[in-house]
Formats: sequence, structure tokens, C-alpha cells
Amino acid sequence: VSFVGDATGGGEFGAIERLAGLFGGLGPGEVGIGDDAALVAVGGGSVVVAADALVEGVHFDLSVLSLADVGWKALAVNLSDLAAMGCVGTRAVVTVSGLDADGVASLYSGISDASAAFGCPVVGGDLTGGPCVCVSVTVLGSGAVLPPPVLRSGARPGDLIWVTGALGAAAWALRRGVWSAALARPVPRILEGVAARELGATAMIDVSDGFAADLSHILDASGVGCSLTRLPIADGATMADAVGGGDDYELIICGPFDIGPGLSNRGLAAIPIGSVVGDPTVRMLDGAPLGREGWTHF
Amino acid sequence: VSFVGDATGGGEFGAIERLAGLFGGLGPGEVGIGDDAALVAVGGGSVVVAADALVEGVHFDLSVLSLADVGWKALAVNLSDLAAMGCVGTRAVVTVSGLDADGVASLYSGISDASAAFGCPVVGGDLTGGPCVCVSVTVLGSGAVLPPPVLRSGARPGDLIWVTGALGAAAWALRRGVWSAALARPVPRILEGVAARELGATAMIDVSDGFAADLSHILDASGVGCSLTRLPIADGATMADAVGGGDDYELIICGPFDIGPGLSNRGLAAIPIGSVVGDPTVRMLDGAPLGREGWTHF
Repeated sequence: VSFVGDATGGGEFGAIERLAGLFGGLGPGEVGIGDDAALVAVGGGSVVVAADALVEGVHFDLSVLSLADVGWKALAVNLSDLAAMGCVGTRAVVTVSGLDADGVASLYSGISDASAAFGCPVVGGDLTGGPCVCVSVTVLGSGAVLPPPVLRSGARPGDLIWVTGALGAAAWALRRGVWSAALARPVPRILEGVAARELGATAMIDVSDGFAADLSHILDASGVGCSLTRLPIADGATMADAVGGGDDYELIICGPFDIGPGLSNRGLAAIPIGSVVGDPTVRMLDGAPLGREGWTHF
Repeated sequence: VSFVGDATGGGEFGAIERLAGLFGGLGPGEVGIGDDAALVAVGGGSVVVAADALVEGVHFDLSVLSLADVGWKALAVNLSDLAAMGCVGTRAVVTVSGLDADGVASLYSGISDASAAFGCPVVGGDLTGGPCVCVSVTVLGSGAVLPPPVLRSGARPGDLIWVTGALGAAAWALRRGVWSAALARPVPRILEGVAARELGATAMIDVSDGFAADLSHILDASGVGCSLTRLPIADGATMADAVGGGDDYELIICGPFDIGPGLSNRGLAAIPIGSVVGDPTVRMLDGAPLGREGWTHF
């Protein structure tokens, strides 16, 4: 999720609320600060746009991930933000600071692998020196889709809730300080997001900060609660990894019953985990209160 | 200029040439890595997009500029990139790392001032911790304009060359380590860029790396040379500041004679400085060879 989406409580949440108040001037149908991606009217069309930065020492450790992994991940997590709107990122711009020419080449080998895998060429950006490695990616995609992009705010009582895969694998690797594909080469759930939008999803988000934190964004934005019966946990991971670990990049999908069979019919995974309830104070997982566990970036 | 435009020779130039070779997949009429901004087909329309990062210790010194200045400048230099295409940035996304909540608030006071001044609201982005301050901005604008956005590659022998203002003021302040409006609060030449495009400009760039470096980008991309008679120098600045200092954010405009009176009739400054010649090896200023002076970011 973007900052826009990184409202995980605490300092950042307040900062983002203040930021959202600074900027007016959006037209009807546009969506600004406060979701996984923005939806803007530019150039005669409708564009979804998301931006996320990865910073050494905060988001990655170069003793575990290679620079190529970081490049892949930087593009993938942004495409995940668009997937959480039910949209496909098709063009990217990238700014990189703090790497020498060899470092840039390594980083870009991973960016270009992800670009080829997901059909999203880099069209511009910036290279600069600097005392720390910071990779900032912005992705653009078409917002001119029907039904329109899926926001966080549309979940309704009675909706079912799915996740697109098991949770906690990245947190497990991060905890052990070992390389894993889940941590290094996440695959954005683009097909799942687009299909869920087409099938009538009412709210979606990707699991980046942590399942409980990210589901809370949907519940808060929609003014609802949840009753969950189970969570699929990745092999080796603990329930704590799955609930609060983050970096999974699975999608949480809310919507009517037919989404489940609809995704299955397309060969896409959708694991039902519970349902949306009307009382926003009810947030339960397997009979216990669900917290807001997740990673605060700020 | 963006990276894309930061090809100022040396390591960065080679890196950018390699990067441009990594990404295919653009459609007809799209422009990728290699100009001030990219031009992409997204969402049913045509979008110009530019991205530049400002990094503490590389692009700014917080003992001279305030965080609010940095915020203003980060948005302004990106709008300058779009102005150099003859386009107007109307939406921005911003990623910020390495600032606490108070720092973010200060930075955003400047971003929001520039946003209001130039009509470009921030619609999303990311806030994150980190060991150094890095502000990365991406701006979007309409590429669905006629005549189309102005590239660097269109300068033709016989074109005249103008700049939109005196050069060297920012370099002068930077050299002295003092605050100046030129350094802290640059004003992108949006009206000038749009008017020059409408009047038939054949090539444009903004002066960010240094006049000689940036003009060289046009000459290289267009396969032409230049014969310059003079350069307007800012009060107090030296010829070296004006030729190689950078950070001016004036536009260099190439095109037919009528652009000069056309801009004047609209009350916009355009100072003629010479003309384009066919021989790409001829690059003269006031009878002396023009170097490629400019700031290499990389």
C-alpha cells in the first residue's frame, strides 16, 4: 500500500490525515491521498497512479537481498498497489539515489526482470548520488475500466472476505534473516485483482504492512467490522507472522459470495476467511479480538 | 531535467544509455527514457510524466535551505521538466524518506505552496523512515496537446535559440553558501514552455545541470551545432556561473524566428542568444568553443 495507504496508526497516520487536507483541486471522480493508488483525470483519460519508496536499512538489508531483488521488489510492490484497485500498471518511472554505476546495473537487472514479467516498462526517472540507497517507483495504469477501480471504502455488511494466498512467509524469512523468494521476489496479484474487480469486489487492499493492519484500513474506511474464522498460514510461519508480519503482497478481497467461485473458475486462488459485519467495533478472528498489528514505516 | 535528461557525460550517461536499452514495449508515439519527460499512452489518453529526486547532501544543504524550500523546489523542478516539453503538470505523487513528523510537515508546507502556485495537487505517495532525507516527486500532465510535446531532438539548422531569463543566480548563491530565492524557490517557466510549443518550438530543455551541459543535450539529440553571440548573466554572477552553474530552471528554446515576437506579445521573456548550425562539431559562444560544463549528479 502507498501512503495514501500507509496509515497504519501512530505518527504516520496523523501526518497523512494532515497531508490529505493540504490539497484540494481534484475533479469529480478523482481519488487522492488515502487509498492504495490515486485515480486522476490527466491527458484526456483516467489514470491510476501509485508510488512507494524502498530505503536501505528500513525496507531491505543488502546482506540478505541482492540489489537485483530490491529492483524486482520495488516495481512489484507498486504493481501490487494497483492490483489492489483491480488495475494493471503499464508504465513506470524510477528514481534511484546512493548507488554507483555497477549498483545501478544490478538494481536495474531486477527491475527489468519484473518489468518483463508484468508488462510494465520503465519510461523515465532519475539517477543521483547520495548517502543512502533509496529506490522510489511510480507506476501508472488505466483507470478507464468498468466496473471502476475498487477502493477501500466499499465493504458492506454481509460481504465475504478472501485472501489470495497463505500469509507470513516473508515475515518468517525476515525474522530468520534468510533469503526467500517470498521476501525477495514477491509476485503482485494482478490477475486476481482485476478478476475480483470484474466480479464485483466492494473493497480490496494488498497485505504490505501486515494482515491485521491492512484489513483495518478497509474496515476503518468502510465503517464496518469483521468476523474471521481462520487465516491461511504459510509453511513454517507462525500465526503472529501471518497476522502482523507484512510484506506478503496477497490481496484481501471483500465482496459478494460469487467472487469465490468466479475466481476459482478462472483458476485463481481465493481462500475465504470470514465476513464483514455492520458493527465497526466487532473485529474478531477465531473468537479472539483482532488487533491492528502491522509494521509502521514512519 | 530527468534521467532521461541527466545524461551529462561520464558514468551517468553510459548508465542511462544502457538503461534505455533494457525496456521495450512502448507503442507508436510514446517517448521513453531520454528526454525531459516521458510521453505515454495510459488510461485512454496521452500523459507526460517526469520524476526527479532531491537528496540531502547532494542537491541541498539544510543549513542554507529550509525543508519548506526543499519541498517547493522538489515540485518546481519536476514541473520545469514538463514545461521543457511545453506541457503543464497537473497531478503529483511524492515519496519522502528520512524525516520525522515535524520534518514532513515543514517539507509539505513548501510542497503545498508550490502546488497552489502552479495548480498541481499531490494525490498520493509514501512516507518512510531512513538514514538520509530523500524526496522523490513524479508529476503527470496532459500530453494530448497540439502541437505535440516538444522533444530535444527537433532542433534544425537556422533555428534561433532563446533563454527565458538570466543565468547563474543559483550557482552564485550556492557558491557563497547563502540563501537566495533563485536557489530556494525556483519558478518553473510553464507559461513560456507552453507558449513556445504553441508557437512552433522545435526543441526545448530546462537549465538544471548547467547551460552548456543542457544545450549540449539538445545539440547531441538533434545532431546539430550552435553559434551563440551572448548569454544573459544574473546580477553578481560570473560567466562561469551562467555557463556551467545549473539550477537555473530557465528554458532553452530552439525554433523559428517568430517565437521571439510571439513570446514578447504574450508578455513573456525570451532573450535571443544565437542560432543552430548544421555542423554538429561547431559549438561556439562569443567566438570561443562552448564546453559541456555542468553538474554531473552521478
